[in-house]
Amino acid sequence: MAQNKVAGPEIERLIQLLSKLPGLGPRSARRAALHLIKKKDQLLVPLAEAMGIAVEKIGVCSSCGTVDTSDPCAICCDAKRDQSVLVVVEDVADLWALERAAAINARYHVLGGTLSPLDGVGPEDLNIASLIERCQGGGISEVILAINATVEGQTTAHYIMDQLTGLAVNVTRLAHGVPVGGELDYLDEGTLTQALRARTRF
Amino acid sequence: MAQNKVAGPEIERLIQLLSKLPGLGPRSARRAALHLIKKKDQLLVPLAEAMGIAVEKIGVCSSCGTVDTSDPCAICCDAKRDQSVLVVVEDVADLWALERAAAINARYHVLGGTLSPLDGVGPEDLNIASLIERCQGGGISEVILAINATVEGQTTAHYIMDQLTGLAVNVTRLAHGVPVGGELDYLDEGTLTQALRARTRF
Repeated sequence: MAQNKVAGPEIERLIQLLSKLPGLGPRSARRAALHLIKKKDQLLVPLAEAMGIAVEKIGVCSSCGTVDTSDPCAICCDAKRDQSVLVVVEDVADLWALERAAAINARYHVLGGTLSPLDGVGPEDLNIASLIERCQGGGISEVILAINATVEGQTTAHYIMDQLTGLAVNVTRLAHGVPVGGELDYLDEGTLTQALRARTRF
Repeated sequence: MAQNKVAGPEIERLIQLLSKLPGLGPRSARRAALHLIKKKDQLLVPLAEAMGIAVEKIGVCSSCGTVDTSDPCAICCDAKRDQSVLVVVEDVADLWALERAAAINARYHVLGGTLSPLDGVGPEDLNIASLIERCQGGGISEVILAINATVEGQTTAHYIMDQLTGLAVNVTRLAHGVPVGGELDYLDEGTLTQALRARTRF
């Protein structure tokens, strides 16, 4: 008996491609495909269209490196944002997270990863040269390194700080401390130590 | 600060549509969208194409009610299958599950749901009339009711059995018992009772 030939190759291909999405495995991809097929007009047709438009329109912002449908992106073009502050992030997902939190009204610079000599990722593989260019261009007074608090992230942050030395910009980084809503009992020693050191007046 | 306007409306729409897939929430839809955009050529373009093809080609088999790119579907057209046996399932997903298990080499009939008077689902809303027609057409010697062992499923099974009375077909149903790999300790009383009653010689 031929296994898996439950339907035409077109459906199998759809399932196979859906299963490559993060968060979907082979089983849930099959469920998603069936859901799409059943809700053809409400979901499959609009999603196919939305993806077609995404293929056509979405590109990388030549200024900050995020993905958007316009170049420069909507954020870089937004005149209401503080033009003197650049928030440096590893990835577009981090930019989206900061924007969702509405944490700051400034512009961004997406590195596209972190330095990782073991994986062969050097400074030339990241958008570091363009960051320095933007800072040299003038008008930037502060660069906030909103880079993950991992070993690679911090190595990258130090490298960028070195590169920016001598330019008239303040380089800052995110505070370490207890997450809002967090319990001390569940925190690691490093975070607790940093939170104590950086304690503020009540 | 405008929240959520992290990118153009096209990206937001893609995220919103992806979040309607089963298994993806708003957060994982965002991750999936970003993944698609980053892997444009490897994933976004082929997936958009696959969906376009699905929109164009996939329909419901007029014979058995499954979804496929041809009508009658590949299974109904498969001459190597036992033409005298019909496996009645609630949903296309159940058909796919049986085919994955390669449990039987016969043809199917998809009801499209179960009887549910409270939800206003009557016999005329399911593919029951077409099942009876297929059986009256002759050549069918056995109808296997592979319907979920839920209250609605069993009500539907009883209804179908009544309708098929008088036709020259054997109506059978799936065995109840201990799932393969299952532990008695975790099974409900109903299943245990059925498994004991239907015990077989070792």
